[in-house]
Amino acid sequence: MKRLKLGMVGGGQGAFIGGVHRIAARLDGKWELVAGALSSDPDRAAASAADLGIPADRSYTSFAEMAQAEAAREDGIDAVAIVTPNHLHAAPAIAFLDAGIHVICDKPLAATQEQAQELAAAARRSDARFILTHNYTGYPLIRLARKMVARGDLGAIRVIQAEYAQDWLAEDTQNKQADWRTDPTRAGAGAIGDIGTHAFNLLSFVTGLQTEALSAELHSFVEGRAVDDNAHILLRLEDGARGMIWASQVAVGNENGLRLRVYGAKGGLEWSQENPNQMWFTRFGNAPQLLTRGQGEATEGTRIPPGHPEGYLEGFATLYSEAADLISGASETAPLPGLDDGLDGMWFISSCLESSRDAGRWVKK
Amino acid sequence: MKRLKLGMVGGGQGAFIGGVHRIAARLDGKWELVAGALSSDPDRAAASAADLGIPADRSYTSFAEMAQAEAAREDGIDAVAIVTPNHLHAAPAIAFLDAGIHVICDKPLAATQEQAQELAAAARRSDARFILTHNYTGYPLIRLARKMVARGDLGAIRVIQAEYAQDWLAEDTQNKQADWRTDPTRAGAGAIGDIGTHAFNLLSFVTGLQTEALSAELHSFVEGRAVDDNAHILLRLEDGARGMIWASQVAVGNENGLRLRVYGAKGGLEWSQENPNQMWFTRFGNAPQLLTRGQGEATEGTRIPPGHPEGYLEGFATLYSEAADLISGASETAPLPGLDDGLDGMWFISSCLESSRDAGRWVKK
Amino acid sequence: MKRLKLGMVGGGQGAFIGGVHRIAARLDGKWELVAGALSSDPDRAAASAADLGIPADRSYTSFAEMAQAEAAREDGIDAVAIVTPNHLHAAPAIAFLDAGIHVICDKPLAATQEQAQELAAAARRSDARFILTHNYTGYPLIRLARKMVARGDLGAIRVIQAEYAQDWLAEDTQNKQADWRTDPTRAGAGAIGDIGTHAFNLLSFVTGLQTEALSAELHSFVEGRAVDDNAHILLRLEDGARGMIWASQVAVGNENGLRLRVYGAKGGLEWSQENPNQMWFTRFGNAPQLLTRGQGEATEGTRIPPGHPEGYLEGFATLYSEAADLISGASETAPLPGLDDGLDGMWFISSCLESSRDAGRWVKK
Amino acid sequence: MKRLKLGMVGGGQGAFIGGVHRIAARLDGKWELVAGALSSDPDRAAASAADLGIPADRSYTSFAEMAQAEAAREDGIDAVAIVTPNHLHAAPAIAFLDAGIHVICDKPLAATQEQAQELAAAARRSDARFILTHNYTGYPLIRLARKMVARGDLGAIRVIQAEYAQDWLAEDTQNKQADWRTDPTRAGAGAIGDIGTHAFNLLSFVTGLQTEALSAELHSFVEGRAVDDNAHILLRLEDGARGMIWASQVAVGNENGLRLRVYGAKGGLEWSQENPNQMWFTRFGNAPQLLTRGQGEATEGTRIPPGHPEGYLEGFATLYSEAADLISGASETAPLPGLDDGLDGMWFISSCLESSRDAGRWVKK
Repeated sequence: MKRLKLGMVGGGQGAFIGGVHRIAARLDGKWELVAGALSSDPDRAAASAADLGIPADRSYTSFAEMAQAEAAREDGIDAVAIVTPNHLHAAPAIAFLDAGIHVICDKPLAATQEQAQELAAAARRSDARFILTHNYTGYPLIRLARKMVARGDLGAIRVIQAEYAQDWLAEDTQNKQADWRTDPTRAGAGAIGDIGTHAFNLLSFVTGLQTEALSAELHSFVEGRAVDDNAHILLRLEDGARGMIWASQVAVGNENGLRLRVYGAKGGLEWSQENPNQMWFTRFGNAPQLLTRGQGEATEGTRIPPGHPEGYLEGFATLYSEAADLISGASETAPLPGLDDGLDGMWFISSCLESSRDAGRWVKK
Repeated sequence: MKRLKLGMVGGGQGAFIGGVHRIAARLDGKWELVAGALSSDPDRAAASAADLGIPADRSYTSFAEMAQAEAAREDGIDAVAIVTPNHLHAAPAIAFLDAGIHVICDKPLAATQEQAQELAAAARRSDARFILTHNYTGYPLIRLARKMVARGDLGAIRVIQAEYAQDWLAEDTQNKQADWRTDPTRAGAGAIGDIGTHAFNLLSFVTGLQTEALSAELHSFVEGRAVDDNAHILLRLEDGARGMIWASQVAVGNENGLRLRVYGAKGGLEWSQENPNQMWFTRFGNAPQLLTRGQGEATEGTRIPPGHPEGYLEGFATLYSEAADLISGASETAPLPGLDDGLDGMWFISSCLESSRDAGRWVKK
Repeated sequence: MKRLKLGMVGGGQGAFIGGVHRIAARLDGKWELVAGALSSDPDRAAASAADLGIPADRSYTSFAEMAQAEAAREDGIDAVAIVTPNHLHAAPAIAFLDAGIHVICDKPLAATQEQAQELAAAARRSDARFILTHNYTGYPLIRLARKMVARGDLGAIRVIQAEYAQDWLAEDTQNKQADWRTDPTRAGAGAIGDIGTHAFNLLSFVTGLQTEALSAELHSFVEGRAVDDNAHILLRLEDGARGMIWASQVAVGNENGLRLRVYGAKGGLEWSQENPNQMWFTRFGNAPQLLTRGQGEATEGTRIPPGHPEGYLEGFATLYSEAADLISGASETAPLPGLDDGLDGMWFISSCLESSRDAGRWVKK
Repeated sequence: MKRLKLGMVGGGQGAFIGGVHRIAARLDGKWELVAGALSSDPDRAAASAADLGIPADRSYTSFAEMAQAEAAREDGIDAVAIVTPNHLHAAPAIAFLDAGIHVICDKPLAATQEQAQELAAAARRSDARFILTHNYTGYPLIRLARKMVARGDLGAIRVIQAEYAQDWLAEDTQNKQADWRTDPTRAGAGAIGDIGTHAFNLLSFVTGLQTEALSAELHSFVEGRAVDDNAHILLRLEDGARGMIWASQVAVGNENGLRLRVYGAKGGLEWSQENPNQMWFTRFGNAPQLLTRGQGEATEGTRIPPGHPEGYLEGFATLYSEAADLISGASETAPLPGLDDGLDGMWFISSCLESSRDAGRWVKK
C-alpha cells in the first residue's frame, strides 16, 4: 500500500476546516501531506508548514507557483485540497485542474456564479477529477438512506424537510471564522451558502430528485449584517415532490442542527447530524425502527462496530496523542490510565469471581 | 514536528481492536507505524505487515525477537501497542518494558492475577512507561466530569450507577471475537473482564474514589458458556459512597451501552457512551443542563466545534478515502460529490437571492 | 362547590372528540353533563344519552330544540360543548349564543368564512361567552412559554418554526374520522384546517405576535383527495419576525407531531406535544436547560408533581375504572393488584431491611 | 349507567395522593364520591368535605364510625379509598372489609408485617374485594409488556433491571409529604417502601416471575435520617432469572425515574415512566422498534389516539376548568381562546388557499 501525496491550499494556523481535512486525510492512512500554500502571508505559510512537517521547499506562498512546481516534480502531489474562503475556491481549483492535478475542494463551489462557471469550464477540459467535500454525504446512515430511497423502500417521495440550524451568529460576532462568512465579497451569501447548500446537497444526494423550482424568503436579523442569517425556502422537485429548507445562524440553542426528513408513499426516514449513528425508518402502518450504524446494511463507510459512536476513535486517539506527548516530553500532565488502573481492574475481576462464588460475600480490598 | 515510531503486537488480518489502535495513532499525526509482530502465524504476519506498509525486515513472528531487534536499532520503535487477547498481554509487555520500550497495552491488564503481578514487577523495574488503553477516559465530557467532581461541583459523592450492557453474546455465537472472549484460559473472565473493567475504571476515573469492598453475583445464561455473561456488583467506596455495576453481554437491544451516573450531595451527572457528545448536569433544585462537547469547559481533547459530533471526522475521512481509491484506481464507484453538485449549489444560492428579492417568486431551474 | 351544568351537541357513539371533551369536563369535577343533542339520528341520540346517564327528557334530536328548551328550564345548562364536524359548528353555536347559553366549541371556528362571520356576529351580540378549544394552549409548559416570551426572556422574537406532522392519511383511508375531514363541504379545508390551525394558534398564543402576511404551497398527495394533505406556509409577523409552518397528514412515522420552536435575540425555546412535560430553553451562550412541568414556574395548570407525566392520572384512573367494573360485575378479568401483591411488597421491605443489616446475606422467600 | 358510590379515608386539605385518587375516580365517570373521613382533625375534615361536595352528614371524623354508618345505609358506599400514610392503612382497611365494603388501598400494604398480616386475615375472611393501587400497572404499555412476556415474545427471561430514582429528599427536607415518609413509625421504611415496592411490583407484574431470594444494601445519606434513602438490591427469581433494583431519593436530577428493562433469550424491552407512551422492543438480531401507546396491540386501557400523550386530556381539562371558573365568576383571568382566535384561524385557512392557488403570492392580513 503506497500512500497518495496530498497538497493543501489554505488551512494555515488559525484556520478551522483545513485541520479537519488533514485529520480526514490521515484517518485511513491513504494520504500523506507533502506540500502546501497554507497562507498568503509568507511567515504564516512557513510556520504552518513547519508545524505540519511539510518540507520548506514544498511550502509555497502562491497557489499558482505551487501548481506549476508540483506538476513539474517527479514526486509531485496527486491531489490538492482547497480549504480557503469561498471567493478563493475557483482560482486555485482552475490552476490545479489545468496542471492536471486532482482537486478536492471545500463547498460551496464559489462565491459567485461567474467564478463557478469558470471553474466548471476548467473541470470539464481537465482530465483531473474535481471532488467537492459535501462531507455529510460520507455518513454511513446517509449512504444507507440513499440506497433505501433508490430501491423504493419509501415508495414515491412526497415531502422532504431539511433544516440546518445554528446559533453562533445570533449576535454581531467578530472573529476569523465569522468575518469572512458575513462578508458578501468573500462568502457570496450568508446562511444559504454556508449551511443551506449542505442541506440542499444532502436532500438531493439522499432522494436523487432534481429540484425544479424554489421560492425563498431570506432575512438578516443582526443589525448591520450584509448577508442573510435566516432562510426559509420552498422547493418543487421532480415527480411532484415538495420540500422545505430552513437554514439559520440565529436559532439560539442549536449548535449544528442539520436534520433531514424524507417521506414517501410507503415509508419515512428521519436523521439528525448531531446523532449520526442512528436513523429512524417507519414503514407505513408499522412501528418505527431505529437503524444504527454498523448493523444490518448500514455498514458502508463504517470503521467500528455498532454502538461505538464514531467519537470512539477520537477518544482512543486522545490517549495515543497524550502518550506521544508524554514520551516526547511535550507534556507531563495527561491523566492516562496505567499500571495501577490495570491492577485495580484485576482486583475487580478476581474479587467479583470470589464474591459471587461465596453468595455475594463482601470482599475487601 | 517529528513523528514517534510505533510497533504493534497482535492486530493482524481479521482482528478488531488492532485496527482501532492504528486509526487512533494516525488521527493526530503524532505516530508512524513501522514495525509489528502482527500474528503468530508467519504468513498472516507478513501479509498483514504488507497491507500496512510495514517493511518486511521489521515484520516479526515473535514479540521476543521484535523487542530485542527494535531495542538494538538506532531507529527502533519508541513504543509498542499490545493488542492481543488478554492472556497474551503480560508476556510481550514484560519483554518490551525490559527492553526499555514504552508500552501501550489494551485492557484488562492480564488474564490472571499471576500474569498481572509479573507485569507489574516489570513495569516497576523499567524506566519505560506503561499505558493501559481504558479508552473511555479519553472522551472530552468524561474529562470534564472528572474535573467537576474533583472541584466539588457535585458535593460529596453518594451514589454511582455504572452499567455496560451489550447483546452480542445473547446466543452461542462462534467467531474470532467471541471465541477467545468466552474461553476462560484466554480471557480470564467473561463480561466482568471484557466490559465490567471498563465500567469500574470509568467510575474510578471520574469520581477519584477508591473502592473498599465489593459484593458480586455473576451468572452465565447461555448453555455451555464457561465464563460469566451477566454480572451484578455492589460497591462500597471511600467516604461512605455506594455504587452498583451491571455488566451484561446478553441484554438484547443494547449495542455498546456504557453508561455512568454519579450523584453527590449537591449535584448529579449522567453520561452515555452511545451519545458521548452530551452530558447532563443538575444542580440540586435547578433545571437539568445539557453540557455539550466543545462548549464551555468541555473542550479538553476535542478537535472540532460543538454540534459536530465526532463522527464528523469519519464522514470527512470517508470522502478522502474514496477520493484516494478513485485516484489510485482501486475503485470507480464511490458516490462522491463533484462539479454538478457544486453547480447545483450555486444555482441554489443565486435562486434563493433572486426569489427572496422578488417576494418569494418561484424561480425555475 | 356546586358543579356547572353542561350540554353537548354531537359526540354520539362512534365519535372521537366528544369523548375527549367529556373526560376533560369530568377531570376536575367542575361540570356535570345533563343534556345533549348527541346525534342527528334519533336512535343513536337516545342510545348515546342512555350510555352517558343523560335523562331521556334532556336528550334532544335537534340543537335548535335543545337551545330553546334548556334556556327555558330553571335548571337549564350553563354551557354547551359543540363537538360536531366543522361545517356544523356555526349553526348550533349561534342558536345557543342567541339563547344566552355559554358555548365551548371545537376548532376550527367553521368550514367557511361565511359561517365564521355569522357566528362572530352572534358572539358579539350575545352576553354569553364563546370559547374555542385550542386545547394545546392548556399545557403547563405552553403557558410558561407564553409567559417567558412576554416578559422578554427570549429577547425580540426573530424566527418561529411550527409544525404539525401526522401520517394517518398517507393512504386513501376511509372511516368516520377520515371521511368528513377529507370532504371539502364538511371540513372546509384539509391539513391546514384540521391541524394547521392548531400550529398557527399555538405560535400566536406563545409569541403574542400578529401575523401580517403569509405565503403558502398546498398539495394533495393521495390520488382523488379533494383537500390538501400537506402544507408549507411562510409567515411574516409583527416586528420583522419570520415564521414557517409545516402541516402534513402524509408524513409516515409521525403520529401527532405538533412541535414549536421559537428563537429570539437572547434565547430559544423548543417544545414537542408528544413529550409535553419537557421544554428546552437556551439563553444565548449558555448550556440548554430542560424545563419540566411542575418545577420552577411551570406549575400553572398542573395537577401532579414533576416527573409524573400526566399519563399518571390515566394509569390511576384505569385501576379505578377496572375496580368499578369488577364491583359492578361488568368484568371479571382485570389484572388488578390486590392482597398478594401487598404481601409480596411487605416481604420485599422486611427482607431488604434484614439482608442489609446482615451484610447483604441472601434472604429467601 | 349508574355510578358507584365511593368513600375516602384520608386525603383532606394539603394531602397529595388523595387528590390523585379523586381525579382517577372521576376520569371515566364510573364513581361518585359521597362520603369521607378525610382527616382526624374535625375542622379540617369538615372543610375538606365541603370543598368536595360531600354532604355534612356523610363527613365523618373516624373511619370506624364511617364504616359502621355507611354499611347501615341503604345508599351506603360501594367502596372506600384509603389514602392515609402507611401506618394507617391496615386499621381502616380491616374496618371496611369487616363491614362488607370493598377497599381500594394505596400502597404499600402497611407499615409493619404485623399490620399486614392482620389486614390479610381480614381480606381473606371478607367477601369484599381488596385492591392495592400499584398504579403503574395501569399503563397501556405495561399491560402490553406483560402480555408480550407471557406469550414468549422475549423468550425465557434472564435479566431484569428495575430502578426508581428521585431527588426530592437529597437534603433534609421538612414538609407534610417528607415528614411521614422519613418517620420509621409512620412509613415503616424509607425508599424501599415508598418507591422500591413500586419497582418490585412492576417487575413482578410484567414478568410474572416469583422472586426467590434477595440481597440488599440500604443506606441513609442525609444526616439524621432514620430510614433508608438509597437502596441497592439483587434478586434471584424463578427459572434462574437475575434482577437488580435501585431505589433512591437522593439521585440529583431525577424527578420520578421509574424505569424497567427486561431481557430474555429472544428479545428485550425497555420502558420509562417519565415517557410512558413509548416502549422499546428488540428482537435479537433486529433493529429496535419503538412501540407506542394506541398503536398495534398497545391499546388496552387507552382513551385517546396514538401520539396524543395522555397529558392531552389534562390540557383539555384545563380549558374546561377555566371555562367553569370564568362562567361561575371564580376567576376572570384565564387565557382561553375565543372568537378572535377562531377568526384568526379562518383567515389562516382562507389565505393559505388563496396564496397557494396564486403561486405562493404573499397574502396580507
